[in-house]
Amino acid sequence: MNALPTELLRQAQQLSESVTRPIPGSRKIHVEGSRPDIQVPMREIALDPTPRMYGIQEPNAPFVVYDTSGPYSDPNANIDLGAGLAPLRAQWIAERGDSSPLPGLSSEFGRGRAADHKLDSVRFPALRPPRRANAGANVSQMHYARRGIITPEMEYIAIRENQRIEAIKEAHLLRQHAGEAFGASIQKFITPEFVRDEVARGRAVIPANINHPELEPMIIGRNFLTKVNANIGNSAVSSGIAEEVEKLVWSIRWGADTVMDLSTGKNIHETREWILRNAPVPIGTVPIYQALEKVDGKAEDLTWEIFRDTLVEQAEQGVDYFTIHAGVLLRYVPLTAKRVTGIVSRGGSILAKWCLAHHKENFLYTHFEEICEIMKAYDVTFSLGDGLRPGSIADANDAAQFGELETLGELTKIAWKHDVQTMIEGPGHVPMHLIKENMDKQLAVCGEAPFYTLGPLTTDIAPGYDHITSAIGAAMIGWFGTAMLCYVTPKEHLGLPDKNDVREGLMAYRIAAHAADLAKGHPGAQARDNALSKARFEFRWEDQFNLGLDPERAREYHDETLPKDAHKVAHFCSMCGPHFCSMKITQDVREYAASQGVTDEAEALEKGMAEKAEQFRAQGAQLYRRD
Amino acid sequence: MNALPTELLRQAQQLSESVTRPIPGSRKIHVEGSRPDIQVPMREIALDPTPRMYGIQEPNAPFVVYDTSGPYSDPNANIDLGAGLAPLRAQWIAERGDSSPLPGLSSEFGRGRAADHKLDSVRFPALRPPRRANAGANVSQMHYARRGIITPEMEYIAIRENQRIEAIKEAHLLRQHAGEAFGASIQKFITPEFVRDEVARGRAVIPANINHPELEPMIIGRNFLTKVNANIGNSAVSSGIAEEVEKLVWSIRWGADTVMDLSTGKNIHETREWILRNAPVPIGTVPIYQALEKVDGKAEDLTWEIFRDTLVEQAEQGVDYFTIHAGVLLRYVPLTAKRVTGIVSRGGSILAKWCLAHHKENFLYTHFEEICEIMKAYDVTFSLGDGLRPGSIADANDAAQFGELETLGELTKIAWKHDVQTMIEGPGHVPMHLIKENMDKQLAVCGEAPFYTLGPLTTDIAPGYDHITSAIGAAMIGWFGTAMLCYVTPKEHLGLPDKNDVREGLMAYRIAAHAADLAKGHPGAQARDNALSKARFEFRWEDQFNLGLDPERAREYHDETLPKDAHKVAHFCSMCGPHFCSMKITQDVREYAASQGVTDEAEALEKGMAEKAEQFRAQGAQLYRRD
Repeated sequence: MNALPTELLRQAQQLSESVTRPIPGSRKIHVEGSRPDIQVPMREIALDPTPRMYGIQEPNAPFVVYDTSGPYSDPNANIDLGAGLAPLRAQWIAERGDSSPLPGLSSEFGRGRAADHKLDSVRFPALRPPRRANAGANVSQMHYARRGIITPEMEYIAIRENQRIEAIKEAHLLRQHAGEAFGASIQKFITPEFVRDEVARGRAVIPANINHPELEPMIIGRNFLTKVNANIGNSAVSSGIAEEVEKLVWSIRWGADTVMDLSTGKNIHETREWILRNAPVPIGTVPIYQALEKVDGKAEDLTWEIFRDTLVEQAEQGVDYFTIHAGVLLRYVPLTAKRVTGIVSRGGSILAKWCLAHHKENFLYTHFEEICEIMKAYDVTFSLGDGLRPGSIADANDAAQFGELETLGELTKIAWKHDVQTMIEGPGHVPMHLIKENMDKQLAVCGEAPFYTLGPLTTDIAPGYDHITSAIGAAMIGWFGTAMLCYVTPKEHLGLPDKNDVREGLMAYRIAAHAADLAKGHPGAQARDNALSKARFEFRWEDQFNLGLDPERAREYHDETLPKDAHKVAHFCSMCGPHFCSMKITQDVREYAASQGVTDEAEALEKGMAEKAEQFRAQGAQLYRRD
Repeated sequence: MNALPTELLRQAQQLSESVTRPIPGSRKIHVEGSRPDIQVPMREIALDPTPRMYGIQEPNAPFVVYDTSGPYSDPNANIDLGAGLAPLRAQWIAERGDSSPLPGLSSEFGRGRAADHKLDSVRFPALRPPRRANAGANVSQMHYARRGIITPEMEYIAIRENQRIEAIKEAHLLRQHAGEAFGASIQKFITPEFVRDEVARGRAVIPANINHPELEPMIIGRNFLTKVNANIGNSAVSSGIAEEVEKLVWSIRWGADTVMDLSTGKNIHETREWILRNAPVPIGTVPIYQALEKVDGKAEDLTWEIFRDTLVEQAEQGVDYFTIHAGVLLRYVPLTAKRVTGIVSRGGSILAKWCLAHHKENFLYTHFEEICEIMKAYDVTFSLGDGLRPGSIADANDAAQFGELETLGELTKIAWKHDVQTMIEGPGHVPMHLIKENMDKQLAVCGEAPFYTLGPLTTDIAPGYDHITSAIGAAMIGWFGTAMLCYVTPKEHLGLPDKNDVREGLMAYRIAAHAADLAKGHPGAQARDNALSKARFEFRWEDQFNLGLDPERAREYHDETLPKDAHKVAHFCSMCGPHFCSMKITQDVREYAASQGVTDEAEALEKGMAEKAEQFRAQGAQLYRRD
């Protein structure tokens, strides 16, 4: 019998207060679907009323927002990291009757890890046997979608994407500029049928491995909300399991829609298990990293067999998407010879080395259909890697990059033959004026499969601030149609990110994603801007903070100069002080007009305000109240 | 006789080490023009050599960058804040023979301040009498330019804008993507004649009051490098004179091309004097703020006479540009009635209140030509204010905003009749897809006068991060042709920024400005990206830090996980560790190919690398060195 990982459990139980405290002003709600086990999580932000004249308090309905934080931010939830999250999808998966639990692990490596007692101190204690598709079955969401089936996951997603926009009554919240979506099919309201259709045609993916039943389903596609991925994972010179689990919980608190575990250090397998069992979001990996660790870091010693076993090992743990650099072809590698920064993708450089060492085609490419057979047995989504993405402005949009993109398009067709869900990874470092070309090419050659970019960074000259250099490019490429944006932290190019960096990166990327939704005219996107700006204009400070992406920081910054509770009803802040606040002055002007029985300022002028102006001055109307 | 401001001098002398320490890796250089008193400051960054095979060290020439930091970052300079900077333009101004020193101050308010002994403790000790144009003369740079005169300021600017691009020999630095400049007239090389022509046609401005001889001249225009403004200034609830001077020096250290003093608190006049006498960059103000202070905050008590006196007071101190909200017309004010955030411009709201209180047209508009007469007597540049800019996404591009823009276009024509230099202020809060319309309209109605925007912010939902929400919009509108970007700090909407906020805001905006220059294809812009990426690829860590916008932070972030000196030559960082660094692997691959006498990887494949691949493996070529 295996001993328990006592020390690790103890560390894990101490998930710090910082990652679990409730999100200020919010409470978790669940919206029920067509059956009681479809309970879609969202956050509801309570708002103060708007003060009107004569003491009237006009209520503001609570504002609902999309929520990725899982049970961790819910004070009513009971968290036990050693037990993992509730397997909310288990019944849906079992009901489909096309998969079964296995008697043991299929992966040789996995079996070896399970039997190794030296790993007792780090092994997740509550392991379940993995499931796999029955012989001849295909358990991917695309397969169901193409057969006209609306799964519970699809219904869940439709409810989630709408964010209860249908319940908004206040007209001022619904006002929105018409967007510019460059031909995307933006819907006024998302239906489960629309979800099914988008998945069937490959324009969206639902990363949802049957071995990740704890997942709160989500969708990645151009016609849905723009998504953000955060990266966690250890490296040889940093970070242990407890820290990685905490980074997961921290990432989703700040809005990560998916998380990639990019560990390259110790105990990759065990680290991943703890993460998956406690992850309400899809988890992605780059299997070549672990494969490389298995051959002690010698790329030339990689083999298809080792890689295949790694795919099965990770699929049976429940990884929802794999980055596979199957587009790094031998003939493209020389095209990087004159680059300023060569090959900057870890996976890409590893495969390039292998190709040159063996003078053979990339084994991920030559064995691609066998990979598809594995993917469809567990419903793992492809993230076709951009191993040849540009790592500097000079290298942007070159032949190596676009050559690989063409091959990814070819591979997408093969994946779709197998009904395997597929998204396409993208750049990188690209100056603003060359960004649209990337989107246009990807749409043309990859059959509208979702695009998933890293930034792009719009200049190389700001190490320490690459969350900003890339938020600019990410916002733009999201507007043009990119479905998911992989975040970049301030530590990019310099070191492994810590918790603060993860927060900064996520804030920059949630901004980019939302700016993209606004520009596309995504229905309801502008409601949050409207709600926050109204709160700002009415000096409802708490509401302004709580409606923002980071309520804690907004409050902290405000309180640096005006910390007292009385300041939260003040009609100014320290930027301008009480005499100069333009919003205050605007309010005075409007109130004066209203008090004169003039509800329309334009009307007032037509009637001739000269008299009223006289009265205004005679009244000695003050610029600021004495309350 | 006035007593000296002893306490203030003592505080000022203690300009902290943080604002004056040398910029790492840089030394100040001066490039001489056609006469010895034209000495144009730049920064030169020393670089380490590139290690080649067989122990060869290939030198990298020092890299020259534009520098706004003035003498403060030069350890050889002797700083005396109580004496002010050297009046480097004094001779050029005197030589023109069209202005003279005045016997005393022309402004009544100014004379009052000078005589008030209670202000001795805050008054700048080394005051000079102001100059003014001789009767009938016009001392604006535009006036000279239109008469075919190339002033020393114009020559200085041409040298400064080129950043010694003509001296770059290394081909790898000069590679650059062709840009997309939307019809701008981007030059391969800036000549003094080109500067003159741009100023003559109003497409660029050189803010350079004859009473600010300490200024290091610079230019703002679509066909020059994109510029950034930082705001400083106290408010009623924060900050004293010594802090404001330190903020000035700090701002220019981090790259502010101009600085606006937006003080609304105590001793506005004296604060500004200390700033001007120690500012190597143009200083802008919003005179209506001080005028409002003179009437104890009652907008309705403002008069043309008080305002006129304020303009003269400030012009005689040397303010280089005035924000004048002459476009806030009575008839536009009602168009803001249905806005979510009303009028967010302080100046705009003040003027709106005045208009409604008096039921009269904005006195800045009705007296505009008289303002021109003042501007031309000192060469103060107009910054025609966007008092009706949108302060929320909902209000973007509405009738109030564009109505005011039309009026600013009309006023530009009037200003140009007087040869008064003019730029146009712009928004605000604008979602990405509505940004280009702003640029296109401004170009069309304002005769290509330079555009100077505040962001724009591309979403309202991130208080605490508005330097990022707005860097996205600023980069885009800079690309489209905006000449100067007014920064936004993380404190926007929440409070007065401190030093850290100023740095964060400037970094975000220097990124936006440079991203814009790259996208426009500004000659030489990509050289810095190329130099930094080459340093990055070659693991010249110190060079990577020093070439970046913030060398100190880049180094600090790197050192968080790898602090030792040995790490600065390490061929990895803590992001991936020694086994996984893609750049290291790429280098291994290239070196192996080269060692086989194969300089062209493509050639190697054509010759059949099978043999060579065999040798590679037999050699046991390691993935990573043991050094």
